[in-house]
Amino acid sequence: MSEVFTFSVSATDGNARCGQISMPRGVIRTPAFMPVGTAGTVKAMYLDQVREAGADVILGNTYHLMLRPGAERIARLGGLHEFARWPHPILTDSGGFQVMSLAALRKITEEGVTFQSHIDGSKHVLTPERSIEIQGLLDSDIQMQLDECVKLPCTDAVAEKAMHLSLRWAERCKVAFGNQPGKAMFGIVQGGAVERLRVESARELVDLDLKGYAVGGLAVGEPQDVMLQMIDIVAPNLPQSKPRYLMGVGTPDDIVESVRRGIDMFDCVMPTRAGRHGLAYTRFGRINLRNARHADDPRPLDEASSCEASSKYSRAYLHHLVRSNEILGMMLLTWNNIAYYQYLMAGLRQAITDGRLDDFIAETKAGWAEGEQSKS
Amino acid sequence: MSEVFTFSVSATDGNARCGQISMPRGVIRTPAFMPVGTAGTVKAMYLDQVREAGADVILGNTYHLMLRPGAERIARLGGLHEFARWPHPILTDSGGFQVMSLAALRKITEEGVTFQSHIDGSKHVLTPERSIEIQGLLDSDIQMQLDECVKLPCTDAVAEKAMHLSLRWAERCKVAFGNQPGKAMFGIVQGGAVERLRVESARELVDLDLKGYAVGGLAVGEPQDVMLQMIDIVAPNLPQSKPRYLMGVGTPDDIVESVRRGIDMFDCVMPTRAGRHGLAYTRFGRINLRNARHADDPRPLDEASSCEASSKYSRAYLHHLVRSNEILGMMLLTWNNIAYYQYLMAGLRQAITDGRLDDFIAETKAGWAEGEQSKS
Repeated sequence: MSEVFTFSVSATDGNARCGQISMPRGVIRTPAFMPVGTAGTVKAMYLDQVREAGADVILGNTYHLMLRPGAERIARLGGLHEFARWPHPILTDSGGFQVMSLAALRKITEEGVTFQSHIDGSKHVLTPERSIEIQGLLDSDIQMQLDECVKLPCTDAVAEKAMHLSLRWAERCKVAFGNQPGKAMFGIVQGGAVERLRVESARELVDLDLKGYAVGGLAVGEPQDVMLQMIDIVAPNLPQSKPRYLMGVGTPDDIVESVRRGIDMFDCVMPTRAGRHGLAYTRFGRINLRNARHADDPRPLDEASSCEASSKYSRAYLHHLVRSNEILGMMLLTWNNIAYYQYLMAGLRQAITDGRLDDFIAETKAGWAEGEQSKS
Repeated sequence: MSEVFTFSVSATDGNARCGQISMPRGVIRTPAFMPVGTAGTVKAMYLDQVREAGADVILGNTYHLMLRPGAERIARLGGLHEFARWPHPILTDSGGFQVMSLAALRKITEEGVTFQSHIDGSKHVLTPERSIEIQGLLDSDIQMQLDECVKLPCTDAVAEKAMHLSLRWAERCKVAFGNQPGKAMFGIVQGGAVERLRVESARELVDLDLKGYAVGGLAVGEPQDVMLQMIDIVAPNLPQSKPRYLMGVGTPDDIVESVRRGIDMFDCVMPTRAGRHGLAYTRFGRINLRNARHADDPRPLDEASSCEASSKYSRAYLHHLVRSNEILGMMLLTWNNIAYYQYLMAGLRQAITDGRLDDFIAETKAGWAEGEQSKS
């Protein structure tokens, strides 16, 4: 822990880095995966389990929390950490991404974005300043600038316009955030799938001297190779001394390939959402527990796992729970998935430290490809 | 624990008894509340939590388990205890009650009942012998006879016919169960709301010298006073030396009044089902967390509770989770409710032991009546 927000790299392997982000509420070991706690809960889990699985930080969604239960209410109740009972670091997004994907009647202007709540139709205005204010009311440790995230594919002109608007909003967010030594506000590199726009966005943001940099607008439907190409373009233009966060990513394969290219932080609903739909992420790849072949299988998902959900419950029982739409099925598979993602991140950190990242990734992918059927 | 199935009474207070049922898999402290684990899971809970909350025994539903995943499958997988990871006592019902309430195209004959699955329409036959066979495949510790449970109100003739059929089925179940010293098969007193039928049913079952006796066909829509009247009629006709189980009951008030009348065992979906619908049972009565008055309330449900769900999470957070339909809301309220029911049973046992049951019940009801609003 540290009184001020700091980032240090303890080891590198190629472009990959292992390090830690320190702040008053704790340390985030990087590369880090942040479970998504949309509405103040990592769905179907107790936060104690999320912590024990190895998570150092969770993500909260400003859009959801501002609408329900409301940022001012959470502030009155002591902030998001107190409200949700997670005393460790929290990163919040700006709300912009969900406004684009969930809200009705969106309208973007230079000032900000107006929209109607998807819950009750109420009208809201989200400006860069209000986004930072809300994230402050939540008492978020790492706050994100408001940005405009365009859907891919799009024309270069659309990508350029959104990128420039996002840069202007980054400046306003920096002013609004001010001087908070124990916290951070990150900028977000935009620019669609256009190399020169990505480079320009990164360089302009670096000139703002922010405490960290995210790569946004990826994992929005484009092929993985486009995403990785953008990371290859952007990463060299970001300072070595600041954490790099790839927003909304991704599959285990996306993560290992992005770590290899120098990304330090990730968030994604995939492990939690998949867990609610009968899918387990394991060392042996992704397993669909709904499949009838598991009905009589007494083996756990991974007997070597330190997570009870993975090592103690039979696939036959998990299959039964999934088929019966039992809540415990969602609870156990989400728990398994969060534990596997954290296990993968720990493996990546160790491999970078040991200077054997490429071997680790190759071994990991071989395990996924081999599949679970051969492990009986 | 005991190699053979035994019941002993350690204290009485009026008609109420405190005791224990012992069997190879463990001890059930009575009066006992059995959380309902319908399909091999107490919904929205880890069974470790159910145990820690104080439950000595859970109930499994033969109807659900025979249809999915199937009794033979559970037997191949090591039995229900192994399948669901609950090494402690399990009581199973006969399947008859759910056939009547859930299945389609039911037809009752002397031989048994034929029906179609509510899941896939498949046809099944449940005879007294098959019910006991299934409960054996599940490896259930306390098995229930197949009976015919009629809806109230009904004519005396309907109640009498069903009661006599249930008696004949009890004899067949006894033969099918045979000699299993570590396990028990309980008979079920029927007879609707007709005193003479209830008495006849109880006396005939006692003549079969079974290891325990249930009172069935109550809590099926009749007023509480009818239910309590039937208990008053039946209990004196059951042996002091055998456990008495009131099936499908009930509210906390139903339970304390039935304990006062000599009932030793209960099961009910109420605490789990209510927990999934935003309702909390507490020392201060039932609290509807969906109500807007909880939105800014930082108090836990019961700060003195030893259950984390009750003592650590604010009502404001629980309200938010319930309003947002978050699974964690169901998890926490179910946990609170199971913990409160077990807390209530522990209080009843202690009060009987101390010879102050009437005072305990009066104090408990005063707490419910006082409500939670005055506890701020």
